[in-house]
Amino acid sequence: MDDLYKRIEASFNRQGLMKTLNASLDKVEKGLVQISSKFKETLSQQHNYFHAGVMTSIADSACGYAALTLVPVDKEVLTVEFKINFMKPANATRLIAVGKVIQSGKTLIICEANVYDNEGEKLLAKMTATIMTVDISRQ
Amino acid sequence: MDDLYKRIEASFNRQGLMKTLNASLDKVEKGLVQISSKFKETLSQQHNYFHAGVMTSIADSACGYAALTLVPVDKEVLTVEFKINFMKPANATRLIAVGKVIQSGKTLIICEANVYDNEGEKLLAKMTATIMTVDISRQ
Amino acid sequence: MDDLYKRIEASFNRQGLMKTLNASLDKVEKGLVQISSKFKETLSQQHNYFHAGVMTSIADSACGYAALTLVPVDKEVLTVEFKINFMKPANATRLIAVGKVIQSGKTLIICEANVYDNEGEKLLAKMTATIMTVDISRQ
Amino acid sequence: MDDLYKRIEASFNRQGLMKTLNASLDKVEKGLVQISSKFKETLSQQHNYFHAGVMTSIADSACGYAALTLVPVDKEVLTVEFKINFMKPANATRLIAVGKVIQSGKTLIICEANVYDNEGEKLLAKMTATIMTVDISRQ
Repeated sequence: MDDLYKRIEASFNRQGLMKTLNASLDKVEKGLVQISSKFKETLSQQHNYFHAGVMTSIADSACGYAALTLVPVDKEVLTVEFKINFMKPANATRLIAVGKVIQSGKTLIICEANVYDNEGEKLLAKMTATIMTVDISRQ
Repeated sequence: MDDLYKRIEASFNRQGLMKTLNASLDKVEKGLVQISSKFKETLSQQHNYFHAGVMTSIADSACGYAALTLVPVDKEVLTVEFKINFMKPANATRLIAVGKVIQSGKTLIICEANVYDNEGEKLLAKMTATIMTVDISRQ
Repeated sequence: MDDLYKRIEASFNRQGLMKTLNASLDKVEKGLVQISSKFKETLSQQHNYFHAGVMTSIADSACGYAALTLVPVDKEVLTVEFKINFMKPANATRLIAVGKVIQSGKTLIICEANVYDNEGEKLLAKMTATIMTVDISRQ
Repeated sequence: MDDLYKRIEASFNRQGLMKTLNASLDKVEKGLVQISSKFKETLSQQHNYFHAGVMTSIADSACGYAALTLVPVDKEVLTVEFKINFMKPANATRLIAVGKVIQSGKTLIICEANVYDNEGEKLLAKMTATIMTVDISRQ
């Protein structure tokens, strides 16, 4: 397990919501992070599929952490905004969110996330996110 | 408790995620729904504030249900997409999401949600959502 | 004509596109700018209504200038991103875009714009925009 | 010139704004359309680069026409909403917008557009758009 993974994992493990969403940090590379979530009933919408909020939450974290892999260790990141399109109902036993940096500036980092079903084949949702770097002391 | 509230509540109670997010259905009117969430550690991001995913999930449900109040009982709604801007860190003991319909068409309904802190004064986040009506049988 | 109007007007007049879009700078207040466009055939889509791009362009400029009214004179603004929902076809002789600041931070300013028809009654489109302040020397 | 190109071109030529924006229809394939615009001063923002509204307008048309290539000839398309991130200033002599369908449903079609500079190498902006199919008679 390399230093980059450890840095992201340290923050991931402090996110109570990620545990609540049954989420795991699958992959960490420069500019790319994959997070997945296993279905349980506590994550459902009214038809017992994954709630859109779960897709969104792991996609948001995947984007934020993909951005964080490119940021100096004395900095953090905040999500400014995102937009997500839902393409198919999340009728799956597992969601896989892959966040990637598509543009990296000094202040702002633009990321995309794709959310796939358990087989990693069907694209269920797509997010574009604007992330801001901030000094850790500002938090 | 009127029929409109009961219709929305029946669906709300089937959303496992709403219980997981400590959420309650506070208000239901024609074209407006309010959902709030009480903080607990299982809903946190890395600084122990509410995770953006919680703000987003209750805002999404508030928009969807605001749309549903305007739809015939043999129809349902699906979230097509939304965009959300985060304005302040969600350092609050309670989040209040108010979803409102701003345009209602036969196929598509456009909603906005404001997410406030516990005192209902600070605007923490703002969402615009596109919702589609679908026949229940299509689900 | 006050100093604030003059500052915005000076930049507005340098935007070749605003002239091309038959646009005028109607109102400038702290945190609010109104821009309108009179229809001509060169601004049309395939049904001879205003092209969505015209609504978007004047809404974008209205948001950017609303932000600029709050920024020190040694700074400028850049549009980071926006999202716009189109609610009704722009079958009008005049479009009126009203841009307003809804959150103002040191680095980022969040704005909204409503686009109305000639009578200022029908809401045709709604934009949310993220604007960044930059030092003029960076341009 | 094939039938698909001719269908799109017929609509493109009726869009007065496309001529105003010095735009040309470069490529039409099933699910993909490319539109470019040559710079002139009438398309500028205050620093004499392309106005963001030009990038947005040709990206919007590229998305709409990419969707139209997949729609029966008795139907049309309307843009419901889009979001666009601007990544670099459009300091270029030509803009190239490539719109692609990423999800095609019966009622809604989701598209993306990338906007490049004259050399087709720098990604200047990225759009995600939601398009709706409508019967021609509804227009």
